Amino acid sequence: MSPPVEQLDYIFKPKSMAIIGASDNIAKWGYMMVDRPLRTGYQGQIYPVNPQGGTIAGLSTYRSVNDIPGPVDLAVITVQASQVPHVMQECVDKGVKGAILISAGFAETGFQGNALQEKAMTIAAMGGIRCVGPNCMGIWSSAACLNNAFDSAPKPGRIAFISQSGTFGGYMADMAGTKGYGLRTFISIGNQADLTMADYIEYLSYDNETGVIILYVEGVKDGRRFFDVCRETLKKKPIILYKGGSSPAGARATMSHTASIAGSDLVFQSVCRQLGLIRAEESFQTFDLAVAFLAQPLPPGKRIGVLGTGGQGVVSTDACQRLGLEVPELDMETVSVLKKLLPPHAPLPTNPVDFAGSYRTAMDEADVVETLLKLDYIDGIISNVPVNPLVWSLKLDQISSEIQDKIKKLTDEGTKRFCDLPRIYHKPIICVRWYSDAKKDPVADTLKESGIPVYDTPEQCARAMAALANYSGLRRSQEAS
Amino acid sequence: MSPPVEQLDYIFKPKSMAIIGASDNIAKWGYMMVDRPLRTGYQGQIYPVNPQGGTIAGLSTYRSVNDIPGPVDLAVITVQASQVPHVMQECVDKGVKGAILISAGFAETGFQGNALQEKAMTIAAMGGIRCVGPNCMGIWSSAACLNNAFDSAPKPGRIAFISQSGTFGGYMADMAGTKGYGLRTFISIGNQADLTMADYIEYLSYDNETGVIILYVEGVKDGRRFFDVCRETLKKKPIILYKGGSSPAGARATMSHTASIAGSDLVFQSVCRQLGLIRAEESFQTFDLAVAFLAQPLPPGKRIGVLGTGGQGVVSTDACQRLGLEVPELDMETVSVLKKLLPPHAPLPTNPVDFAGSYRTAMDEADVVETLLKLDYIDGIISNVPVNPLVWSLKLDQISSEIQDKIKKLTDEGTKRFCDLPRIYHKPIICVRWYSDAKKDPVADTLKESGIPVYDTPEQCARAMAALANYSGLRRSQEAS
Repeated sequence: MSPPVEQLDYIFKPKSMAIIGASDNIAKWGYMMVDRPLRTGYQGQIYPVNPQGGTIAGLSTYRSVNDIPGPVDLAVITVQASQVPHVMQECVDKGVKGAILISAGFAETGFQGNALQEKAMTIAAMGGIRCVGPNCMGIWSSAACLNNAFDSAPKPGRIAFISQSGTFGGYMADMAGTKGYGLRTFISIGNQADLTMADYIEYLSYDNETGVIILYVEGVKDGRRFFDVCRETLKKKPIILYKGGSSPAGARATMSHTASIAGSDLVFQSVCRQLGLIRAEESFQTFDLAVAFLAQPLPPGKRIGVLGTGGQGVVSTDACQRLGLEVPELDMETVSVLKKLLPPHAPLPTNPVDFAGSYRTAMDEADVVETLLKLDYIDGIISNVPVNPLVWSLKLDQISSEIQDKIKKLTDEGTKRFCDLPRIYHKPIICVRWYSDAKKDPVADTLKESGIPVYDTPEQCARAMAALANYSGLRRSQEAS
Repeated sequence: MSPPVEQLDYIFKPKSMAIIGASDNIAKWGYMMVDRPLRTGYQGQIYPVNPQGGTIAGLSTYRSVNDIPGPVDLAVITVQASQVPHVMQECVDKGVKGAILISAGFAETGFQGNALQEKAMTIAAMGGIRCVGPNCMGIWSSAACLNNAFDSAPKPGRIAFISQSGTFGGYMADMAGTKGYGLRTFISIGNQADLTMADYIEYLSYDNETGVIILYVEGVKDGRRFFDVCRETLKKKPIILYKGGSSPAGARATMSHTASIAGSDLVFQSVCRQLGLIRAEESFQTFDLAVAFLAQPLPPGKRIGVLGTGGQGVVSTDACQRLGLEVPELDMETVSVLKKLLPPHAPLPTNPVDFAGSYRTAMDEADVVETLLKLDYIDGIISNVPVNPLVWSLKLDQISSEIQDKIKKLTDEGTKRFCDLPRIYHKPIICVRWYSDAKKDPVADTLKESGIPVYDTPEQCARAMAALANYSGLRRSQEAS
């Protein structure tokens, strides 16, 4: 049954939280759960709870949650598993609304742990407390600037990430951060003893600040509800998932890791296809795919125009076709229009369009891309980042300031036009870099700020475009039915 | 027919070179071909040739190659296509031994260009000049510190990269550089009017400093010789290739790009399999695969031990099985040995072995890995980088210097032991990071220095291990026959 949004708000937007099992040992979770939110901007009340008293990270402690003077929305619990039922009862008595159970030693350890987990959950359910975990690593909720999962707070953004692995999910989110991707919410869901992945997805489906949801799934609990929630959510926003335990040996490991039964991968794959869930082939592809959905229009079809010099265009095109996209040949009229826009030594324009490595300006590239976007048989563009001749291997001190100004103007204005094209033509543009060193290419930053994703490799571009096209097809079929 | 090694030495280790078509216009190839080798450490003679005289990048020019006083090993030619036959004849008259033809406008442009190319090649052949290109972007040869392909000289190393795309190949090499991978040789081969990819592979097969060869191939000229050379070379070193033009639309583009006929991908794939060529699925995977071959022993089989916390181990294991590697279950004796080495809350050791996210030292991890390497049914290891508790989220100022010293000692000594294990057991170790920020993990740098590859994702580890295992199988079958 769906928990009401208000109940999960107590977890993701708490006004106050108690850290039960707070510790002054900096190597312990009980310390980090106090220190991290304090240090990374959480504005609500933090109450460390420790029977021995004293101060932790500069905050006075309380001997029990019931000693806390004001109301407590959320309890973050790090005590030993055996103490959790007792602590949970105290939380019920206090009127706590939600709990994050960091503590491990429950269902993932076997029969006895499972019994203990059942006991704690029964107390929580009777007292109306909804629980994250146990055996989890906490959350990041940009809605409350609440971070207990990461050493540094992630950059806020519109991607939500629900992970069945704490350490690995944290690493994935961390890597995403180095690419500049912002996170709305991160949830390490642990054993899902109470709240399940489906509950979080449903909650986030109502959150207007969440543009796309990523899942790291090992095994699904209550498959029917999970897939029902996904079906409804996909009407509003895309869901991208990576499935761990897809191999027999991997599935063996998920059992001891998060007490999950990975199930048949074939069945899972076929349900994903039916529903339109976007399944990433590799774990780290999830975030690269997600970012494409945040600011680009969905392509009306699968026919892609490719712009790129030499091998770049060839590799983009190969990747498109491998992923089920089409790269149609151009009509003769378009060929003659493009011929005038390309440098004289460029080969006869076809699709992919080859710029022949010449030093053109962004204005020229915007012209070429616009010519392709106007075609009713082109649904989206994969292009290199428009060149900025000023950062190529030229020696600026040997170019007159007049020419420099002219190149700068054509680059700036061309880049602006390039960035406007997706909105004008309601078709997406996805770009691939020229340079390994991002500093060498300020145009790439401008593109990203305008919402055009910029990837390192042609294959990443094609994967993102295929995800957009597939999701677009799903949305069109939903609207038609 | 094979060109003798000595002839290609004139191209890759020239004592002197003439730049024909040298220019003082910094935006032109004729400038860069003088400037780049001059600026990036080439120690031989550079003679700029320009009929108008003057100086270029501080060097006096010669009106013709025949005006140069000393001998000229290599001519780098950037003049217009129509002038190339004439210039080539002058080079023959001068006694030049090799040429790099940057100039475009030959076979890639159609019938007329092809005739011009034939004419120039006939003159070169009659005069005994071997040619790179035309329509190429030059080379990097660390043997002579000769760079005309890149704005900055690549870091020297043991990977050779032969690319049928100049711009894209350059970008791939550039990206590889940002990962710290060193390059022995880069060759932009252009139209292969004289020297073909097979010739370069054969030449590099004799070069002891070349540990592995990467190819970006669009279409193969003289397939029989290409595959014969590959077969022989594979007896000495691995060849990793990415094939552009594997899709119909991609193949359409290779024709105008490098005048290549991409051919049937199914046939190509089947020949690669038969020969044991390592075919990368994506362009940028080539370098990540290559680096694994440089310092790790080849695994005696395909059975992998996986060490990783939670989802990391699960994802590594899934990727291994997807790629045809095995992740065997452990025998009971090993399980009981490992149980003593793992933290008490870790799940019962299986394969993958789960460290359960605990703060252990590198010494503990070396113990676990050694336990696995001793097993006759384990052929290689995929592991996380051993942890260094000193860079975790601990506050060092709150730890006594005595404990810090102890942790440092266990980390340093454990890391050293970890690094020695591949040599002791003749089995490879491949690692995946914990941190997006490399600075946070000095252990990763120590590993890389010792030759253990460290990748960003579990899937990269599995791909590298599969490449090692497949090549190892080829070598064993070669030795048996």
